[in-house]
Amino acid sequence: MADLANRLEIEDLKENLRAVQELLHRHQVVEGLVARQDMPRQDLVEQLVQKQHLAELRGKIERLHPADIAFILESLPLEERLVVWDLVKADRDGEILLEVSDAVRESLIASMDSEELVAAAETLEADEIADLAPDLPEDVIQDVIQSLSLEEREQLRSAMSFAEGSVGALMDFDMVTVREDVTLEAVTRYLRRLDELPGHTDQLFVVDRDQKLKGSLSLARLIVSDLEFEVGTVMIPELISFNPEDKADDAAQAFERYDLVSAPVVDEAGRLVGRLTVDSVVDYIRESSAEQVLAEAGLSEEEDIFAPVWDSFKNRWAWLAVNLVTAFIASRVIGAFEGSIEKLVALAALMPIVAGIGGNSGNQTTTMIVRALALGQLQAHYWRKLLKKELGVALLNGMVWGGLLGVLAWMLYDSKALGAVMTLAMTLNLALAAFMGVAIPYVQQKVGKDPAVGSSVLITACTDSGGFFIFLGLATLILL
Amino acid sequence: MADLANRLEIEDLKENLRAVQELLHRHQVVEGLVARQDMPRQDLVEQLVQKQHLAELRGKIERLHPADIAFILESLPLEERLVVWDLVKADRDGEILLEVSDAVRESLIASMDSEELVAAAETLEADEIADLAPDLPEDVIQDVIQSLSLEEREQLRSAMSFAEGSVGALMDFDMVTVREDVTLEAVTRYLRRLDELPGHTDQLFVVDRDQKLKGSLSLARLIVSDLEFEVGTVMIPELISFNPEDKADDAAQAFERYDLVSAPVVDEAGRLVGRLTVDSVVDYIRESSAEQVLAEAGLSEEEDIFAPVWDSFKNRWAWLAVNLVTAFIASRVIGAFEGSIEKLVALAALMPIVAGIGGNSGNQTTTMIVRALALGQLQAHYWRKLLKKELGVALLNGMVWGGLLGVLAWMLYDSKALGAVMTLAMTLNLALAAFMGVAIPYVQQKVGKDPAVGSSVLITACTDSGGFFIFLGLATLILL
Repeated sequence: MADLANRLEIEDLKENLRAVQELLHRHQVVEGLVARQDMPRQDLVEQLVQKQHLAELRGKIERLHPADIAFILESLPLEERLVVWDLVKADRDGEILLEVSDAVRESLIASMDSEELVAAAETLEADEIADLAPDLPEDVIQDVIQSLSLEEREQLRSAMSFAEGSVGALMDFDMVTVREDVTLEAVTRYLRRLDELPGHTDQLFVVDRDQKLKGSLSLARLIVSDLEFEVGTVMIPELISFNPEDKADDAAQAFERYDLVSAPVVDEAGRLVGRLTVDSVVDYIRESSAEQVLAEAGLSEEEDIFAPVWDSFKNRWAWLAVNLVTAFIASRVIGAFEGSIEKLVALAALMPIVAGIGGNSGNQTTTMIVRALALGQLQAHYWRKLLKKELGVALLNGMVWGGLLGVLAWMLYDSKALGAVMTLAMTLNLALAAFMGVAIPYVQQKVGKDPAVGSSVLITACTDSGGFFIFLGLATLILL
Repeated sequence: MADLANRLEIEDLKENLRAVQELLHRHQVVEGLVARQDMPRQDLVEQLVQKQHLAELRGKIERLHPADIAFILESLPLEERLVVWDLVKADRDGEILLEVSDAVRESLIASMDSEELVAAAETLEADEIADLAPDLPEDVIQDVIQSLSLEEREQLRSAMSFAEGSVGALMDFDMVTVREDVTLEAVTRYLRRLDELPGHTDQLFVVDRDQKLKGSLSLARLIVSDLEFEVGTVMIPELISFNPEDKADDAAQAFERYDLVSAPVVDEAGRLVGRLTVDSVVDYIRESSAEQVLAEAGLSEEEDIFAPVWDSFKNRWAWLAVNLVTAFIASRVIGAFEGSIEKLVALAALMPIVAGIGGNSGNQTTTMIVRALALGQLQAHYWRKLLKKELGVALLNGMVWGGLLGVLAWMLYDSKALGAVMTLAMTLNLALAAFMGVAIPYVQQKVGKDPAVGSSVLITACTDSGGFFIFLGLATLILL
């Protein structure tokens, strides 16, 4: 028993979530019963049962980590979400709002009045308030600013001034600084007075009187070193630092590559202005990889899976509209060859194969290149080499799959010429896919656009319209 | 100057990489000149220039972090990659092999003889050797095992016994342990004797004489506490621990949710067997999100962008083959309606629109559900609710886009009936897409398959064949 008490295993955590969900479900069932009996005055027993459930639920929730409560809120439909949200103690509202996804945050904020929102925001630190600010009403923000100290106001202003996706937007202000010329003994005494160090403090930053960064003293080093030494003799003078304007992507790569836990953020003059910690970086990595997956399917933002139909429609319509336009263009390409199809209706059945395989192959090329570009691994003088390789792969694919489909078409429609057209068209469309698969990310990068966005639609548009044109055009020339 | 010397900014790091690439490019140009002149005995001056370049390059490389060298190796074509690899000092080979991607690692290992490989592996720790082991020849592994201490052999055996994607495969053995009944003073003395703490040591693990985990003592707490206290009084008894068999995905979610830097790994009996650190977790998150992106385009593994054509073909063929089969089935569906198309050739031009938009819409539904499933946010009793919502979105989309396309078809072909068929077919195919978009991940999850794999192919297969069938079938019934 004692052994179990001091360990929180991942299964226990999952169990907690299940217990809350179970309680909610029961609560919902009871409410359902009450509603179904359609009584103006609820039965006393049932009222009691329900109150008991809610009390039990409140107890469970109180023992959960804010991130777990956020998780539960995200996995509930709106109505039940608000039941749980009401049970959360007001002083935890702020940290939970920070943890939930944007879509769910909106739904929670909409259920709170100004007073509650101000109270929630006041429990947070300046950099955290800055994260919430875009979702808060203007009057709430003004009230919150009033309640801050001068230093915190300055921090909030600074945190809100950096663009999303910059280091400045991710950094916090919880760094502990020391001077070069004090002894480790003095540092230790200073730290004891702090009582508790900010989370993720693996190192103290050494600064001069102008706040200029001079080096870093890790806690590990502080512990193993002789306390009579001065900070300047044991600190590490070389450390990786960021500028608030640096891209968060670059910072994330640096954290990954150099296995950092925290890193200083300095301004142009070399003054320490903030700190970046691995937990913000992990959150950032997760969020941006999720965004990428969603963007590839044309979901413009993270969708609350229980969002109303209308919200979902708005989140998805732009992508469908773009695809509709490209599909319509492809349809007009076919329309131009209606005469040929009328004469040889087999063309109608075979043409989607040519277009489809081109799209699949082109997307493989583009995916690989976009990834290399995102990692910064594609040097300018290798594009030509890459194009040659991709055209080689396309030719090989054309011979193998085009050849196979050619034989199938020949057997199905008993026409060698039709088979030959099929093989030739597939090879040409695969070559077009390879060329566009390299050219599209190349051009996007040249003109300063993110090659990850929209390249899949563009490549599919080319291989669809191009595939129909190549196949129907060749057939018209050769067969008719 | 002094200010600049103690800061490594992200731009400096990038500059280093550019300098090496520049040198390599020059080196390559010189080699090119030599080769083009086709002289059996190279000109002395050019030989000198080349040697100078190589010496300069070696100097640059020596100053780089192993992760940066790995990055450079990944961004070079094979030939140049091996030039750089030869310049790397042998004692750094091991750590660099750990950092590079699998495809590049294979190419580097292929260029080394057994002796070099054994020497490289011997510079690593047991858990790191386990990461390399799958790529090493059997005789090299045997030689390495011979060189290990008994404890290390046991660690290696343990690390290699856990499946990829488990916590056991990610953990290391660098944990520092202390007993409950010693004073912080004694702990501090003990740590000083260690001289240096292992990387990412933010806490010491408190164990009893049977290695059973009792709690955690963070370095921050050790520093701010009175040294006369015993470990047992200041340690935190509750901490999140993992089992080696736990899924790495769950561990990554826990690290993200609870902002961990390190966590203990304990066996069934509660004994401490290893440690998980945030740097391994970050690497894991990055790798699995990259794999997901690649898998969605049907790239079966991370591709070396400079791989030979044949290697690329092998990496991509399976996906193309699967898509070819589904495209062929769709083609046969069209084939069944050739008589209808012959009578009304407009059908051939319009049918890809119906199929295509269904695929786009179905993929949106599936992407959203797969993400919710991966996060564990979809409870069993909400599937029905979700299906209703998705069918609602499909109906709305059908009215809007189907209606628009219906009007376009009516105007293009001057046939109200054709327009009506278009609208009806699009609405039905969108409803099919919504149904399959929910049903496919639901079934995949029920039968224990990963819903992220293959759902996109399946949904597209349904909406293609289904779309052609619905549109051509309706047209045959209503128009002909």
